Amino acid sequence: MSVLVIGGNGFLGSSLVEGLRAAGAAVRVLDVSAPRADLDWAGVDYRHGGLDDAGVLAEALAGVDRVYHLASTTVPGSSNRDPAYDVSSNLLGSLRLIQAMADNGVRRIVFFSSGGTVYGNPERLPVHEDHPLRPISSYGVVKVAIENYLLMYQRLGALDPLILRPSNPYGPRQSTSGMQGAIGAFLGKARAGEGVSIWGDGGIVRDYLYIDDLVELAVRAGASDACGIYNAGSGCGQSLNELCALVRELTGRPLPVEYLPGRDFDVSEIVLDIQAARSRFGWAPRVPLRDGIERTWQALQAQ
Amino acid sequence: MSVLVIGGNGFLGSSLVEGLRAAGAAVRVLDVSAPRADLDWAGVDYRHGGLDDAGVLAEALAGVDRVYHLASTTVPGSSNRDPAYDVSSNLLGSLRLIQAMADNGVRRIVFFSSGGTVYGNPERLPVHEDHPLRPISSYGVVKVAIENYLLMYQRLGALDPLILRPSNPYGPRQSTSGMQGAIGAFLGKARAGEGVSIWGDGGIVRDYLYIDDLVELAVRAGASDACGIYNAGSGCGQSLNELCALVRELTGRPLPVEYLPGRDFDVSEIVLDIQAARSRFGWAPRVPLRDGIERTWQALQAQ
Repeated sequence: MSVLVIGGNGFLGSSLVEGLRAAGAAVRVLDVSAPRADLDWAGVDYRHGGLDDAGVLAEALAGVDRVYHLASTTVPGSSNRDPAYDVSSNLLGSLRLIQAMADNGVRRIVFFSSGGTVYGNPERLPVHEDHPLRPISSYGVVKVAIENYLLMYQRLGALDPLILRPSNPYGPRQSTSGMQGAIGAFLGKARAGEGVSIWGDGGIVRDYLYIDDLVELAVRAGASDACGIYNAGSGCGQSLNELCALVRELTGRPLPVEYLPGRDFDVSEIVLDIQAARSRFGWAPRVPLRDGIERTWQALQAQ
Repeated sequence: MSVLVIGGNGFLGSSLVEGLRAAGAAVRVLDVSAPRADLDWAGVDYRHGGLDDAGVLAEALAGVDRVYHLASTTVPGSSNRDPAYDVSSNLLGSLRLIQAMADNGVRRIVFFSSGGTVYGNPERLPVHEDHPLRPISSYGVVKVAIENYLLMYQRLGALDPLILRPSNPYGPRQSTSGMQGAIGAFLGKARAGEGVSIWGDGGIVRDYLYIDDLVELAVRAGASDACGIYNAGSGCGQSLNELCALVRELTGRPLPVEYLPGRDFDVSEIVLDIQAARSRFGWAPRVPLRDGIERTWQALQAQ
C-alpha cells in the first residue's frame, strides 16, 4: 500500500505519517515546507512542493494507491481577510489535485475538511453530518466547495472520496501560536509563564479530539472502501473557560485570562455527532481530554 | 432607484432590464457583449465589461442602490470540461463584485443561482429550498459557493443578499442553440424544419418558467427587504417527450426526435417547490406552458 500525504509536514500530517507507517504503508509526503526536525523521516519519500504545480503533483502521484489531502494555505481566522486567495490557493489547488488523480488513475482520496467551520452556528447539538452547511468563514466556504467537487466526481464515477470533518484536534506538535487552536496556545502560554487572551466571554464551546484518535480514524477509514462524509470529533464539548481551568490544574501555572471582544467568524458552540464514524469503522475516541492535555504538556516541556 | 444589471445583455438579463424600466428604475448594465440589436436601450446606461476588472466594477457601482448579478461564463453542459475556469471566472469574479460592493457601500444584491443544478438529483419532489445541495456539475458547485459567500457576508453584516434559484426559464430571446435550454432549441429546430436530438430517453423532467413570470419575481423580490434563498419555478414538471409533443402541436411541424445516450451531468428530474416565493412576495406564475411556448414561437417567427 503506497500512500501520499499532502501537507504531511504539519501538525496533523506528520502524526498521520507516523500512524500510516505503523500500519505498514509506504509513505510519500508532499509539503511546501522542509521536513520538521522532531520526526524521524527514515523510509519516507519526502518531496517538496504544493498544489500549485501540476507537474510536481503528477510525479508525486505515480504509483500511489491512496491520497490524504491535508494541505491548506489558510486557517479560519485568516481566511476572511482575503477570500480570493483562499479560493485561488485551496480550491483551485484541490481541483488541480483531482485532475492529476484522474490523469494518473488514482481514485482513493481522504480529504480533511472541517467540522468546526462547515456547519456555521449549528441549529442543534451534537451536529450530524446532514446538518445544513452555513459557514461564516471563507475557510468553511472553500472546504464545502472542495467537498462538493469530490462528491461530484464520485457521482460521476471518477473518484472514491472519503471526507473527514475533524472538530478541534490537539496534541503534541500542535502550534503554540494560536493558529491551530486553543489547547496548544494555552499550554504554550502556561510554559512561558504568561496569561492568555480569549476572544469573547470564554463561553465558546469546542469539541477537542486528541491527535492519536484522529490518526487512528484516518488510517482505518482510508483503508476501508467507505465513501462520503464522516464527522471526526470527541462528541463532547468544553468551553474555553473550562479548558483554562483544566490547563491551570494540570500545569500548576496561574494562566491569567484577558477577555477581548468576540470575533464575528467564530461559531459560538460546536459539538460533533460521531455516531456515523463509530458505526462504520468500529472506531471510538480513546483519550480523555485530561489525559490528552497531560500528554501534550509533557511533549511541550520535553522540547 | 438606481439598479445595476450585470449580464444585462443576455436572455434573462435583457428581459429583466425591460421589467426594471417598466417598474420605474434607472438601469445601468454591465456586460461583456455589445448591446443586442433587438432591444431599445434608450435611457439605459450601458457599460462594457465583466467581473474580471475591479476598476470597471467600482465605476459601475457608483451611485447604485441594488445589483442584479446574472453573469456566467459557463453553462451546466460546459462547466465540467474545465472546472478551474468555472471557479476562476465565476467564483473569483463574484468575490471581486462582493469586495467592490463593500468598498462602495452597496448592500443589496439579487443573485441568479440555479434551481436546476444546485440540488443535484433530488430525493423528493417538488424540491424545497432546504433540500441538501448535491450538485453533479461544476456549474452547480460554483453557484453553491457563490451563495455561501453571499450568505456568509450577510451573517457578518456586510450584505443584504437575495438569492433566486430559477428552474428552466424560457421565452423570447432564448438562444436556439440549446445552450439555454430545451424550449428555445426545440422551437429553433421546428422553425428550421429539422428534428431534435435528445440526450437520454426523453423522460428527463424539468420545471419550465416563462421569462415574464421570472422577471416579475426578480423585480418584486429585489425591491423587498427579504434576504435568503427562494426557488423560482412554475412548480410543475414536464418531460422532454411531453415538451416535444406540445411543440409539434403548437408549431404544426413534425419535429422528429433522435435519442442519444444520456449525459452524466444531467439531473433526471427536477420540479421546484415555490411556496416560499408565493408567500413572501405574493407572487405566482401566470403564464401556462402552452401560452408561453406560443408566445415564444411567435417571437421567433417575427425575427
